Amino acid sequence: MKAAVWYRARDVRVEDVPSAAPGPGEVAVTVAYCGICGSDLHEYADGPHAIPVGTPHPESGRAAPLTLGHEFSGTVAEVGPGVTGFSPGDRVAVEPHYRCGDCARCRAGEYNLCRHFGFAGLMGDGGLAERAVVPSYMLHRLPDGVSLDQAALFEPAAVALHSIRRSGLRDGESVAVVGLGPIGLLVVRLAARYGAGRIVASDPSGARRDLALRLGATEVVDAGALPAGEADVAFEAVGTEGTLRDCLGATRRGGRVVLVGLGGTFAFDAFALVNNEQSIIGTVGYRDVHPELIRLVAEEGMDFTPIVTSTVPLADVVRDGFETLLDRGSPQEEIKVLVRP
Amino acid sequence: MKAAVWYRARDVRVEDVPSAAPGPGEVAVTVAYCGICGSDLHEYADGPHAIPVGTPHPESGRAAPLTLGHEFSGTVAEVGPGVTGFSPGDRVAVEPHYRCGDCARCRAGEYNLCRHFGFAGLMGDGGLAERAVVPSYMLHRLPDGVSLDQAALFEPAAVALHSIRRSGLRDGESVAVVGLGPIGLLVVRLAARYGAGRIVASDPSGARRDLALRLGATEVVDAGALPAGEADVAFEAVGTEGTLRDCLGATRRGGRVVLVGLGGTFAFDAFALVNNEQSIIGTVGYRDVHPELIRLVAEEGMDFTPIVTSTVPLADVVRDGFETLLDRGSPQEEIKVLVRP
Ligand SMILES: [Zn+2]
Ligand SMILES: [Zn+2]
Ligand SMILES: [Zn+2]
Ligand SMILES: [Zn+2]
Repeated sequence: MKAAVWYRARDVRVEDVPSAAPGPGEVAVTVAYCGICGSDLHEYADGPHAIPVGTPHPESGRAAPLTLGHEFSGTVAEVGPGVTGFSPGDRVAVEPHYRCGDCARCRAGEYNLCRHFGFAGLMGDGGLAERAVVPSYMLHRLPDGVSLDQAALFEPAAVALHSIRRSGLRDGESVAVVGLGPIGLLVVRLAARYGAGRIVASDPSGARRDLALRLGATEVVDAGALPAGEADVAFEAVGTEGTLRDCLGATRRGGRVVLVGLGGTFAFDAFALVNNEQSIIGTVGYRDVHPELIRLVAEEGMDFTPIVTSTVPLADVVRDGFETLLDRGSPQEEIKVLVRP
Repeated sequence: MKAAVWYRARDVRVEDVPSAAPGPGEVAVTVAYCGICGSDLHEYADGPHAIPVGTPHPESGRAAPLTLGHEFSGTVAEVGPGVTGFSPGDRVAVEPHYRCGDCARCRAGEYNLCRHFGFAGLMGDGGLAERAVVPSYMLHRLPDGVSLDQAALFEPAAVALHSIRRSGLRDGESVAVVGLGPIGLLVVRLAARYGAGRIVASDPSGARRDLALRLGATEVVDAGALPAGEADVAFEAVGTEGTLRDCLGATRRGGRVVLVGLGGTFAFDAFALVNNEQSIIGTVGYRDVHPELIRLVAEEGMDFTPIVTSTVPLADVVRDGFETLLDRGSPQEEIKVLVRP
C-alpha cells in the first residue's frame, strides 16, 4: 500500500510499504481522510521534533522512518486477536493518543498525560496511508449522521475542546483567540457553543478573520490589536513569546491565558502576572472529548468543514500539502488540507 | 503620635505625626502589633515600588511620605461618622486591601482585583504607628480566643490561604513549597491543615527547614533539591526565575505552580509547560479569608506565632527591623519581626 513516510526534514516520501496485519488488540483501518497538522509541518520543515529517531517509542515500538498523519477517519478493514466491539465495515474516528494504561496519570483517567504520551502518526505509524493499524482503544464508532470528513477534523476539534475545558469557561465570559489556524478557528466555533459571550479573534490574515466571523467570533482584529485587559479567557494558538504577551495583555485581572500553541522558551512579566492574579494554563492533546464531538455533529449538526480549504490525493501530499501550507505566498491561503488516500 | 514614615529608599523615619480623627466610614485603631513584610523591606531597600510618589492613590488620597505597615492588629479607639458595627475597645485584625466597591471585580466579589488595588501601609498610611485610621470595611472583630499577636499574622496567613485556594488543593495531594520565608512557612502550615498529603519544603537555610518541619512539612530539602516531577502543586514563594524553574521541574504532568513571590520578567520553558499540561497560577493578596483564619485560631487552636523571631519597639524599627532583616549575616536569622508600637 501507499504511505507518506517521514525520513528526515524535507524528505517525506510517498512510497509502497508492506500492509501490516493487526496484532493482538489492534485494528486495521482503511483511511478515508487524514488532515495535515501544524506539527506534521514542523516535522517536515525542520524535524525531528517529536518523531523518535533511533530509540523506538515505548508504546508503538517504532522509530523513523515512519508514516505521518494523526488526524484521520476511515472504515475498519480487519480486527486483530482479542479485539471486541469493532467489526469490518464500521466507520470510525481515530483518537491517536498512545497510552500505557497503568501509569499514575492513566490510572487517574488523564491518559493525555501518560508517561508514554505520543501520537500515532508522529511516534508511530499514522494515517497518511491507504491503511493504518492502531490499538483498538484509539477508535470511536461513528453514527450515520457523522461523515468521514467531519470525523477527520475531530482531532484538531478535540484539541480545541479540551483547551476550552482546561480554561474553565463559564457562561457569558469574554474570550480572546490569538491565532486563527485550524485550532484557533475551532476554539472560536466551540467557545461560541459552550457559552462564550464576546469572542474577539485576532490574526494578521483577513481571510482567516472572515472565517472566524463565520464560525462565531463577535469581533475580529489584526494581530496585536486586541483590546487591553478585557478578556476573561485568552487562547494562545500561535506559540510565540509575542502572542503570549498579547494574550496576557488582553486578559483582565484574575483572567486566564490558555497556552495551546507550542513554542520554546518565553519571557513573561511575572510581576504583572502575580499582581493581576492571572494564570497561564498549558493544554496538551485531549481526553474524553470524542463522544461529545460525535454528539455535536450527529445531534446538533455542528459543522467543522468550513476550515477545510483543500482536499488532495495522497500521491500529491508533499507538493499540494506540506509545500503549499509552508508557502506563505501561495495564491490561495490554505488552512486545513485533508488528504484522501 | 509616633509613626514610621517612608520618605525614600533607606530613609524611614520614626517621627511625630499628627493624630488624625477618623473621617466618615473610618475607624481609628490603637495598634497592638504590626509585622514587617518583605514588601516593606523592598520599599526600604530600593523603593519606591508600590508606594505612590507624586500622584496620590485614588482610594487613600495619599502619596509619600507615608506611614508603612500593613500587617496589624489593635483596639478600636474612635469611630468616624456613619460607622456601625464597631465601638471603642473592640479588638480587631486589619485586612488592609483598599477597594472601590464598584468596579467589575469588586462587583464580582473579587475585591483583591479592584482597579484601585492597594494596601494601607503601602499606598496609604498603615500600622507602623501608635494609631492608624482605616476604612471600617478593613476590620474584623476578634473573639476572645484570638490574641492580638496571632491577629497581626493574619495578613501573611491570608496570602498563604488565598494561594492555597487558588491552587485548587485537593485532599491527599502532594505539595512542594519553595522558599521558607513567612509566606512559605504559612503555606506549609495551612497546606497541612487543608488536606495536603506529602509536603516537601525547600530553602537554603537549615533553621527555616527545621521550622517547616515543626509547621507540618513531611520532608525538607536544600534549595534546588526538590524531587523532579512529583508534586501535584508547587508554591513559589521567592520570586525569582530560578525558583519558578525549580517549581515547574518539581511538578508532575498536569500539575500546578502557584506563583506567590513577586519578581520581574522571567523566562520559562513554554514548550515543556504545554507538553506537560502544567499551569502557572498567579495569586495576589486575598479575599474572604479572614473569617476562616479567625475560626482556625479561635476554634482549632491553630498557632501562627512560631514564625515570629523578634518583637521590637517602634522606636527601633529601622535598626532592629529593616536593617536586621536585610542583613543576611546577622547572628540570629530573623523570619517575622513584629513591631509593638
Ligand atoms: Zn495535531
Ligand atoms: Zn500511562
Ligand atoms: Zn505583605
Ligand atoms: Zn473595585
